[in-house]
Amino acid sequence: MLSKNKIKYIRSLSLSKFRTLHREFISEGTKVVSELVKSPIAVSDIFVTQRWADDNSKLHSVFSYEIITENEMKLISQLSTPPGVLAIAAIPTCDLEMNKIQDDLCLVLDGINDPGNLGTIIRTADWFGVKHIICSLDTVDAYHPKVVQSTMGSLFRIHVYETELSSFLNSAKSKNISIFGAVMQGNNIYKTQLSTKSSFLIIGSESHGIRDYILPFINYPITFPAFSENSEQGAESLNASIATALILGEFRRISFNL
Amino acid sequence: MLSKNKIKYIRSLSLSKFRTLHREFISEGTKVVSELVKSPIAVSDIFVTQRWADDNSKLHSVFSYEIITENEMKLISQLSTPPGVLAIAAIPTCDLEMNKIQDDLCLVLDGINDPGNLGTIIRTADWFGVKHIICSLDTVDAYHPKVVQSTMGSLFRIHVYETELSSFLNSAKSKNISIFGAVMQGNNIYKTQLSTKSSFLIIGSESHGIRDYILPFINYPITFPAFSENSEQGAESLNASIATALILGEFRRISFNL
Repeated sequence: MLSKNKIKYIRSLSLSKFRTLHREFISEGTKVVSELVKSPIAVSDIFVTQRWADDNSKLHSVFSYEIITENEMKLISQLSTPPGVLAIAAIPTCDLEMNKIQDDLCLVLDGINDPGNLGTIIRTADWFGVKHIICSLDTVDAYHPKVVQSTMGSLFRIHVYETELSSFLNSAKSKNISIFGAVMQGNNIYKTQLSTKSSFLIIGSESHGIRDYILPFINYPITFPAFSENSEQGAESLNASIATALILGEFRRISFNL
Repeated sequence: MLSKNKIKYIRSLSLSKFRTLHREFISEGTKVVSELVKSPIAVSDIFVTQRWADDNSKLHSVFSYEIITENEMKLISQLSTPPGVLAIAAIPTCDLEMNKIQDDLCLVLDGINDPGNLGTIIRTADWFGVKHIICSLDTVDAYHPKVVQSTMGSLFRIHVYETELSSFLNSAKSKNISIFGAVMQGNNIYKTQLSTKSSFLIIGSESHGIRDYILPFINYPITFPAFSENSEQGAESLNASIATALILGEFRRISFNL
């Protein structure tokens, strides 16, 4: 049985300030929790309902868990239809060191504030083998329950950092890293020489794009072209996660010579 | 001032059954409503707050509106932070005729049920110049408020149809249309000959993919390859809207010879 204090503690983890204080976060659902237990992240508790345990006998044998009632699960779940399995785990500590990331293709996110978008970006980055994502301090917290759920486990394989972007990008420039930025009026990506070695790709927020004080750091402003017959009549922009996917796809196509 | 009945009517439009009954839907926000009034769709009412009217003096001069109080706006808005402008418009009637769409690249959606995903797919299709989207009967309704908002106006430029997919695809096959399907274990898209002329692309639901009874209609099962160093350790799948974007992008790149 869950104590009142434990319920209160778990519920508090839906808020960023308590996650920062306790350095713990919530994951829910069979897929996400399975990926979590396979990862190096330290798991402190797993709660399951009897129904979930009955339906997933193969799965739950690989980790220890506590059975709670459906009502208790409703009290601690962040989802309107609780999937029946919920884990509490430690937020990993990631030290941002330029010499560990400077040889790779890394993503830099400037003010992404929709949790679903950030989650989808993390999942997509994982698909394309991107290992490091550097977020501005005002990007939504990667351990927000909605972000965790929409990464489908990719969050546990990727290093996500939070930092003040201008000093970080200053330091990247001094290391001769190529800095690409997704902008509205940039060069056509198909006419730009892309290299995934020592390259950072900056993606701006859904509503304002990359902020003015970040723009001067960009060496290669790029745009993924629209293909409407009449470009004035088509969509004016792409969702931030879609733009990220299309650009990463093109980077990988070029580097794999496809 | 809004009557109680009017408020009740507008609120009812958040539910699919009342949208089907009244053939009307809600749009909110400056960008979405601006796109709506530019489109051929019949708008019956536009409600704005005084604050919105003051902030958007250029915009609101192009259409007639009724000023309501902030409290009234809260009562009819579907959003937690009402943007101050809300329109009611007629759901367009789209007759699905094979000879009108058979020469194009069309999207076919099998059971997409997340409104945000459908909205993003419609917006992305618009970016890539796709004019027709054919949805299975259980795909989320395109005039769901969350879909409308996430299309950012693209919904008003695209023909969205709902139909029983197997008889529709039967008829497509008899017209020699190439039917592509995004599946987990298909042919690498980079090794598949893509043609945007007379081609339909089927995208399955987020959780189950394309359903078994739809699979036999596919001539070209395709997969967008993952690029993780170790594919067993990377993401196992892509979000449905991301997969749609990457595949449409590749179709357009090939047809524009880029």
